[in-house]
Amino acid sequence: MSVVVRNIPRVASSVADAFAAFGVATVHEAQGRTGLMASFMRPIYAGARIAGAAVTVTIPPGDNWMIHVAVEQCRAGDILVVSPTSPCDTGYFGELLASSLFSRGVRGLVIEAGVRDVRELTAIGFPVWSRYVSAQGTVKETLGSVNVPIVCGGAAVNPGDLIVADDDGVCVVPRLQAQAILEKSAAREEKEAGVRARLQAGELGLDIYDMRAKLKAKGLKYIDAPDGE
Amino acid sequence: MSVVVRNIPRVASSVADAFAAFGVATVHEAQGRTGLMASFMRPIYAGARIAGAAVTVTIPPGDNWMIHVAVEQCRAGDILVVSPTSPCDTGYFGELLASSLFSRGVRGLVIEAGVRDVRELTAIGFPVWSRYVSAQGTVKETLGSVNVPIVCGGAAVNPGDLIVADDDGVCVVPRLQAQAILEKSAAREEKEAGVRARLQAGELGLDIYDMRAKLKAKGLKYIDAPDGE
Amino acid sequence: MSVVVRNIPRVASSVADAFAAFGVATVHEAQGRTGLMASFMRPIYAGARIAGAAVTVTIPPGDNWMIHVAVEQCRAGDILVVSPTSPCDTGYFGELLASSLFSRGVRGLVIEAGVRDVRELTAIGFPVWSRYVSAQGTVKETLGSVNVPIVCGGAAVNPGDLIVADDDGVCVVPRLQAQAILEKSAAREEKEAGVRARLQAGELGLDIYDMRAKLKAKGLKYIDAPDGE
Amino acid sequence: MSVVVRNIPRVASSVADAFAAFGVATVHEAQGRTGLMASFMRPIYAGARIAGAAVTVTIPPGDNWMIHVAVEQCRAGDILVVSPTSPCDTGYFGELLASSLFSRGVRGLVIEAGVRDVRELTAIGFPVWSRYVSAQGTVKETLGSVNVPIVCGGAAVNPGDLIVADDDGVCVVPRLQAQAILEKSAAREEKEAGVRARLQAGELGLDIYDMRAKLKAKGLKYIDAPDGE
Amino acid sequence: MSVVVRNIPRVASSVADAFAAFGVATVHEAQGRTGLMASFMRPIYAGARIAGAAVTVTIPPGDNWMIHVAVEQCRAGDILVVSPTSPCDTGYFGELLASSLFSRGVRGLVIEAGVRDVRELTAIGFPVWSRYVSAQGTVKETLGSVNVPIVCGGAAVNPGDLIVADDDGVCVVPRLQAQAILEKSAAREEKEAGVRARLQAGELGLDIYDMRAKLKAKGLKYIDAPDGE
Amino acid sequence: MSVVVRNIPRVASSVADAFAAFGVATVHEAQGRTGLMASFMRPIYAGARIAGAAVTVTIPPGDNWMIHVAVEQCRAGDILVVSPTSPCDTGYFGELLASSLFSRGVRGLVIEAGVRDVRELTAIGFPVWSRYVSAQGTVKETLGSVNVPIVCGGAAVNPGDLIVADDDGVCVVPRLQAQAILEKSAAREEKEAGVRARLQAGELGLDIYDMRAKLKAKGLKYIDAPDGE
Repeated sequence: MSVVVRNIPRVASSVADAFAAFGVATVHEAQGRTGLMASFMRPIYAGARIAGAAVTVTIPPGDNWMIHVAVEQCRAGDILVVSPTSPCDTGYFGELLASSLFSRGVRGLVIEAGVRDVRELTAIGFPVWSRYVSAQGTVKETLGSVNVPIVCGGAAVNPGDLIVADDDGVCVVPRLQAQAILEKSAAREEKEAGVRARLQAGELGLDIYDMRAKLKAKGLKYIDAPDGE
Repeated sequence: MSVVVRNIPRVASSVADAFAAFGVATVHEAQGRTGLMASFMRPIYAGARIAGAAVTVTIPPGDNWMIHVAVEQCRAGDILVVSPTSPCDTGYFGELLASSLFSRGVRGLVIEAGVRDVRELTAIGFPVWSRYVSAQGTVKETLGSVNVPIVCGGAAVNPGDLIVADDDGVCVVPRLQAQAILEKSAAREEKEAGVRARLQAGELGLDIYDMRAKLKAKGLKYIDAPDGE
Repeated sequence: MSVVVRNIPRVASSVADAFAAFGVATVHEAQGRTGLMASFMRPIYAGARIAGAAVTVTIPPGDNWMIHVAVEQCRAGDILVVSPTSPCDTGYFGELLASSLFSRGVRGLVIEAGVRDVRELTAIGFPVWSRYVSAQGTVKETLGSVNVPIVCGGAAVNPGDLIVADDDGVCVVPRLQAQAILEKSAAREEKEAGVRARLQAGELGLDIYDMRAKLKAKGLKYIDAPDGE
Repeated sequence: MSVVVRNIPRVASSVADAFAAFGVATVHEAQGRTGLMASFMRPIYAGARIAGAAVTVTIPPGDNWMIHVAVEQCRAGDILVVSPTSPCDTGYFGELLASSLFSRGVRGLVIEAGVRDVRELTAIGFPVWSRYVSAQGTVKETLGSVNVPIVCGGAAVNPGDLIVADDDGVCVVPRLQAQAILEKSAAREEKEAGVRARLQAGELGLDIYDMRAKLKAKGLKYIDAPDGE
Repeated sequence: MSVVVRNIPRVASSVADAFAAFGVATVHEAQGRTGLMASFMRPIYAGARIAGAAVTVTIPPGDNWMIHVAVEQCRAGDILVVSPTSPCDTGYFGELLASSLFSRGVRGLVIEAGVRDVRELTAIGFPVWSRYVSAQGTVKETLGSVNVPIVCGGAAVNPGDLIVADDDGVCVVPRLQAQAILEKSAAREEKEAGVRARLQAGELGLDIYDMRAKLKAKGLKYIDAPDGE
Repeated sequence: MSVVVRNIPRVASSVADAFAAFGVATVHEAQGRTGLMASFMRPIYAGARIAGAAVTVTIPPGDNWMIHVAVEQCRAGDILVVSPTSPCDTGYFGELLASSLFSRGVRGLVIEAGVRDVRELTAIGFPVWSRYVSAQGTVKETLGSVNVPIVCGGAAVNPGDLIVADDDGVCVVPRLQAQAILEKSAAREEKEAGVRARLQAGELGLDIYDMRAKLKAKGLKYIDAPDGE
């Protein structure tokens, strides 16, 4: 059964906006190393960092009809998240659809499939994280669903969840945990700032994190190279 | 049997030049979604867009002798298209061969294998679409053929065919269809310009393409989120 | 048994520094087409070229503890080379560890696994060649070894060996052969400069390398296209 | 947070047992072409077909501790479903763990990672669907969870869901839909039996499914080969 | 444009039948090491060896409608060869379609995509060479073509060409060359029989093929292990 | 420089023979989880288990000349281990070379490339572990070396090392450690026999390995399903 779910509850935009200060690595750690999409989900150009609410789409291989349907459900601050029902590198999305999303204030696209018009998308600054780049066109024949739970890049995504994406990849934060993870991300960043300063001053992680005794207990041996200097 | 075919008929250079205005996605659609090479054929640097006549090379794994042979058959406006007889990521091509092709007016290289000297090729602006980047050297022992029909990146290429390549990948247009596809590409671009303007003004593809009735007929349901806003 | 070998003999830094003038392709050829890592070892940003002495690390999947141990063994001019005991795309290394290595004068990281904080690593100019980019975090529970012989990217690396890396990939030069390979690299570059000038002037490799007779002896035939121009 | 959820509700064993009559293809179709794991999930030997309730495990890369924990939660008729938190081909499971599960009446293992002791598992008839075969050993250091929702082979699996697996792969049926899908599977099989008899008698699918008019409406043309017989 | 070409000329069945005596490796060598499909084209069960005339199908991703159309064009002795227009692992073909082909005397299927009902296809002895095994179902919405030139597994296939397939993979022989390749295959087999007898008697290939002088001329050195026995 | 090293010291055949009683998983664990080749090294048929001394070959892509050279260096009880200098799926080895090795008492082949004549190799019982199956033929033009250190399947192999291979893959044991690893393998098997009996009797690994306290200390929580039975 194909369905479009309207008016989904979304992570609050004030919360989503605050996440833009943090990278994917920080957010992923802050929520206990969960929610990361697979490493094959790569940005089409370097330097973009976005956070927003997921509008989810499940879609047949080689058929992008439901993306057109999904556009109508998108609001300013959303991120479109698309997953085909079987692996497909087809170019589901290009500059025309990006123009449409852009005019609605959508912040980017995450798609476990192909994207095209990379040159134009880069020029207008519409960021995409995809598995493939491909110009292969699609048909508009078969239904899927919008705003149902999906798996994208190996991660479960529910509509309205928070999506964070940057050069490291894409992370999903469950909607109801977003506020808590935001606070944990900020705490982690603050703690890292202290460590960073000490590392830059030449201190070792071995000492900062107090690892030497534990390493010794595990049995780590130090020896000098027999032919050493 | 190894053969070099000289003086192949080529797509007219006025036609090839005119294709440079269109991207791979447009050309691929204009010829009925055919001719696209596989999505693993990627540019070594972003931003290049070329169109030209194919000089084809079939070549053994790890042996680039026939590329030297092929250089002599290349003319200004050509694109060299190379495919190994079995999968190979060896670096068949680097800056010296690029210098040679560059001096003859060749516009780029398409190779389902590896390329090296990426830094230098980027600096001189000689674009390459390849499956791999690899410094692995080759031998010069075994023959192949030049200007015979080949399969490259999963697409059939005949010598003299039109090649179009940009950030989205590589597309092949049969020589005798190039003029017709050029016209269809222009028509498609023109039509898309109108759609783009409407999309940017906020109209939906659902309305522009008149999809709502067909979606309903297929059985698409709209519901509101039970826990919605 | 897990061991950290201290004070390994290293390729002389004067020799390593001199290699920075040569690319990976040149060095790989100069040592008889050996020592190249697999083509999946890619730089996280374009344009870096480094050479230095290998500090090697073998490490469990998803556990980066030994990288912290290895940092202490690194000196100015070194390159950290890390290989997991089984394939893993986890993000073992990020901006904090880079800060630590940077403060010690380490020139870069080569890792057959994942790396994260690509945005920050690019900003501070700490180059990494990796198989994957991934934000996935690691644990610190299980030992490995530092400065033992490893296989990384399909190439054998001994501690203290010379590592050369650029946009084409990563090459390993055995420590005791580095001086000889340096001289061969310089000789090769010089020879190529002469060939390059002739190619740019329009001469053909077929003639410069005197290939025509050998091609004929192998049976290469030249024919004109039946439907040619 | 790591947690073991005990006494999960399971698909009724009478329902699970009834599914053993149907193949994965039938069940997947009966539930609207959903629930199929990725095609890289392959059986270690041909011919097994099982159905049972999922006990789910999420587990770090290279660490099989939680499988030992999960064994205690397994009952007769269950199928263990294991997914690592990042991609890993390590051999998490072998003949000893199989002996333990076998003695509890567990029907098989589904794991998006590696398995070892294939020879012994084949001999005792304990079926496994895995992404890899690998003897690489694991550590027991880091927690995961048992009987929480997971993604395995790209499919969402909740504890207690029905798993069906055969030579075609693995399919997940949500627990509360299992009875309904069982009925649809039976209906589909019955319908197919009728079609099969007609096909074997030489009738064409084109006629049985009444496709000719629709094909013509879509524009399909029939022509005779110009050089035909 | 979608088209079904009827009454294609086929390789003579007496010729095709005679090829069944030869393996793919022999045929591939006999025609100058050309025509082999990629190594990812694997049989679903071991031991089958077939030869026959290609009926070709080009088909959209995830849509198997045209296979139903193609069945009608198949005759006894044919082999169906199917290639999707973009990479797809969907299970396009199963036991019902096999029943239909089987009743017409078709010898097998070659498909660069997925196949399902492996258990049943093995039981009835209908051999398939495919890239994937997958139960994922398809739609019937979009046209393709039957009996046009295609690329399958990286090899160009024309309708009516000879297909040979066994445990080593799939090879294509152009229709008009089949008789000549048959003779060359027989000659090769005969020659190999003589070599085989000498090898089994303990003679070395080095001597039979008279390689020693050429190896020496190339510079091969023999040394004894310094720490040898 | 290409070299053939004769009369290499080999692991004692009495030691090698004794290893045939142990599987790859046992041996790999006994030597501290090292020495395993990558999981893509798969047997061409199920059920073989061999152990023997490595004769190593490094070989260009698509060129099997050095295998002919290596045959002469093989003795009864040896295993030929072949690695190309760059990735290649070519079918380097088939039934004729197997006949030659078979007549010399060689126990099998390990090759990080392709193999052909699978049907015949299976029939005569000559086991092969390879990365690919491919009928693609090779040339005989370029030298490599025999009995030098190589990397095969990601593992370092020295000539004369012990190779163990079975359905789980391939493991390398350094020659001088083979006797010690044999004893550790036997000890491990004995210990496992005791554990196996307890597991088969229904005891849990949690208790046999005394894991409960450590799990609790790490923070593992047990809860009952809220909707449980």
